[in-house]
Amino acid sequence: MDAVISFLTDFGTADTSVGQCKGVIAAISPKALVVDISHAVPHYDIVTGSWMLRSAVPHFPACVHVAVVDPGVGTARRPIAIECGRGDILLGPDNGLLLGAAALVGGITGVVELVDPAFRHNPVSNTFHARDIFCPAAAHLAHGVGIHLLGPNLDPRSLVQLPEPESTFVDGTVRTAVVGVNEFGSLALAAPGDMLARLGQATHVRAIVGDREIVVRVVGTFGEAATGEPLILVDSYGRLCLSLNQQDLAQRLGIARADKPTVVLSPVLDDPRRPSPEDQSR
Amino acid sequence: MDAVISFLTDFGTADTSVGQCKGVIAAISPKALVVDISHAVPHYDIVTGSWMLRSAVPHFPACVHVAVVDPGVGTARRPIAIECGRGDILLGPDNGLLLGAAALVGGITGVVELVDPAFRHNPVSNTFHARDIFCPAAAHLAHGVGIHLLGPNLDPRSLVQLPEPESTFVDGTVRTAVVGVNEFGSLALAAPGDMLARLGQATHVRAIVGDREIVVRVVGTFGEAATGEPLILVDSYGRLCLSLNQQDLAQRLGIARADKPTVVLSPVLDDPRRPSPEDQSR
Amino acid sequence: MDAVISFLTDFGTADTSVGQCKGVIAAISPKALVVDISHAVPHYDIVTGSWMLRSAVPHFPACVHVAVVDPGVGTARRPIAIECGRGDILLGPDNGLLLGAAALVGGITGVVELVDPAFRHNPVSNTFHARDIFCPAAAHLAHGVGIHLLGPNLDPRSLVQLPEPESTFVDGTVRTAVVGVNEFGSLALAAPGDMLARLGQATHVRAIVGDREIVVRVVGTFGEAATGEPLILVDSYGRLCLSLNQQDLAQRLGIARADKPTVVLSPVLDDPRRPSPEDQSR
Repeated sequence: MDAVISFLTDFGTADTSVGQCKGVIAAISPKALVVDISHAVPHYDIVTGSWMLRSAVPHFPACVHVAVVDPGVGTARRPIAIECGRGDILLGPDNGLLLGAAALVGGITGVVELVDPAFRHNPVSNTFHARDIFCPAAAHLAHGVGIHLLGPNLDPRSLVQLPEPESTFVDGTVRTAVVGVNEFGSLALAAPGDMLARLGQATHVRAIVGDREIVVRVVGTFGEAATGEPLILVDSYGRLCLSLNQQDLAQRLGIARADKPTVVLSPVLDDPRRPSPEDQSR
Repeated sequence: MDAVISFLTDFGTADTSVGQCKGVIAAISPKALVVDISHAVPHYDIVTGSWMLRSAVPHFPACVHVAVVDPGVGTARRPIAIECGRGDILLGPDNGLLLGAAALVGGITGVVELVDPAFRHNPVSNTFHARDIFCPAAAHLAHGVGIHLLGPNLDPRSLVQLPEPESTFVDGTVRTAVVGVNEFGSLALAAPGDMLARLGQATHVRAIVGDREIVVRVVGTFGEAATGEPLILVDSYGRLCLSLNQQDLAQRLGIARADKPTVVLSPVLDDPRRPSPEDQSR
Repeated sequence: MDAVISFLTDFGTADTSVGQCKGVIAAISPKALVVDISHAVPHYDIVTGSWMLRSAVPHFPACVHVAVVDPGVGTARRPIAIECGRGDILLGPDNGLLLGAAALVGGITGVVELVDPAFRHNPVSNTFHARDIFCPAAAHLAHGVGIHLLGPNLDPRSLVQLPEPESTFVDGTVRTAVVGVNEFGSLALAAPGDMLARLGQATHVRAIVGDREIVVRVVGTFGEAATGEPLILVDSYGRLCLSLNQQDLAQRLGIARADKPTVVLSPVLDDPRRPSPEDQSR
């Protein structure tokens, strides 16, 4: 069996950190297939890392996932492995990073603390637990070691939680938040796709993103809008997404990848072809 | 057999799109070996993507190749798989991206439209066909499914074509175009390497690149020129290439990766050591 | 057996060079597992590449390693393979790049020059020996070919050496140099971790980095310092490291990834909480 290990970090690929981790895995489990999710989580940004992880994990087979965004490396924060209902095992720091993804693949069925030195890369450094704790444990799991050999059980209720944005529909208005900015500058929102129907049959929606306002066309895919036209659609994650066709909305609104501004959506009832304030200012 | 699937996109690696695609492949064909060609095609740039694809595909074994630069995703453009004389199968949108590479590995021997829902990742989104159509089909092919199960045959003559730059030699002058800018800032030209001989025994060549002019030395490899010296050589693709030794010519001339300026080459008959206008302006 | 081939270059991943190399390997040895160490060595920077290689190679199993930073490609510099005491084989240009890593995995036990055309990708270009010489040779080695089939033996004493920074402790002061800047902006020093003890029990150390001076706190891991606080620790390479907790020290001091400034460390004997000159200027 070629066990799959997915891998998400904020390490980037300009230095050798990711390579070292993969070397350690290859030394323990040379038949494991390491699949990069991304190593471009904004540095130290656990919340963005959490959303990136949940965007990818459901599309993998049930497998081992290592995710490391770990500003508390070497402090008292616990290194953990979470077993999920679908059969996945998620490894990383106990700082909330893993929980959103765990909920999408069957929820938590068990948690262990990664303490057994037999399944670590020794000596364990103070500053690089991805290489010295998480990846070795993942490689041993991929190689067939049972999760309960890695350390004692933890109470799932003891795990550190992240704040989660709420998406509401009140008084004809959707209130939600940006949870991700992709490579093309589209803004992924927390609101599920079916909230778009709540706004009725409007062809256009007014979107207030942080302190910026933009009128967007409701479409099924990018190519239905003119080049550069603002649009809203249900994206490939099943969530709402604000975008420009073939242009970069995040750049235009001055939103960085780590930003998580609130978003308010309401139907446009007057002439939808009236330029938005955003466009008028140009 | 570990089937190889090469992978080229304009998705970048800052978000999780490429990771999701690889997860889908691993779920269908865990023994497939996905090899990244690059994910840094300039966004929406089908022409540059086409040239990048043809630079790489001939160096692979006959295998499955997924290439996605797809501004028309979700519109009427067709998702296709092209079977080639060497045995390769190229998958991607019917927008011209795949045809240049197909010609280099034996030409088109068959085309199908990827419509069978049994070989898609369901539900198919409107916006991410790499994950939902192209990569699942590639994984099934790598797993041994016959191409004709994926959908009905298409007439190869019905495929969308890209304009192709012509390279000519007229009146002692080569006229061609830039088709790629590499990481080091070298300019790959459409003209095949043997066109250099048409310019005679000149030790130096005058190159007009868009509206810039530069005198370059004819060399066999970079190290024959002084550091920073402009040069022309036959590059590793067998085409002409303009470069500076150990410096970035594209940056110096203000040429972006997506730019495709025309290039005119003529032999320098006077003193080759006379500084070029480019150099004089410094 | 799935042989592992690690891969380090200065090619970047914006063009298809790395993909072409992997295609060539897959054509020769489809079961080989290519593991990227990094492709972001600063262009032409053999010294930084050497330090990156030695940071990663010891964490791999004994395997084949290809490392290419090769400004002299196509000139008289020799293409080589170095056999090491641990069983690793390092392939790359004879320009000093490989020697530091070789010393960390058992030292040199043999060297051959890669000249046999049977183990090259033909025709060999003048400008891309990673694709045409180093990766094919690595793939044949991974596939079971003996190293001595690749070409004649070379005298290890004939190999090109790089200058190595010295780390000294004289008059209560450590003198060393930066050897790497990681993704987070930490400065890896040449000095081994145990040199920190030579500075005594000081809680703070004065660090002169090039022409900049900074007072740093001695810690065991990043999280022991306040956010943004300058610190020194023994990093995951077992060497000294200057950093800011969760901020970018290299950016703050204006140090680029290729820079290798000297560093002088001395214990702070007066009030350690006095702001450093660096901080006073803000």
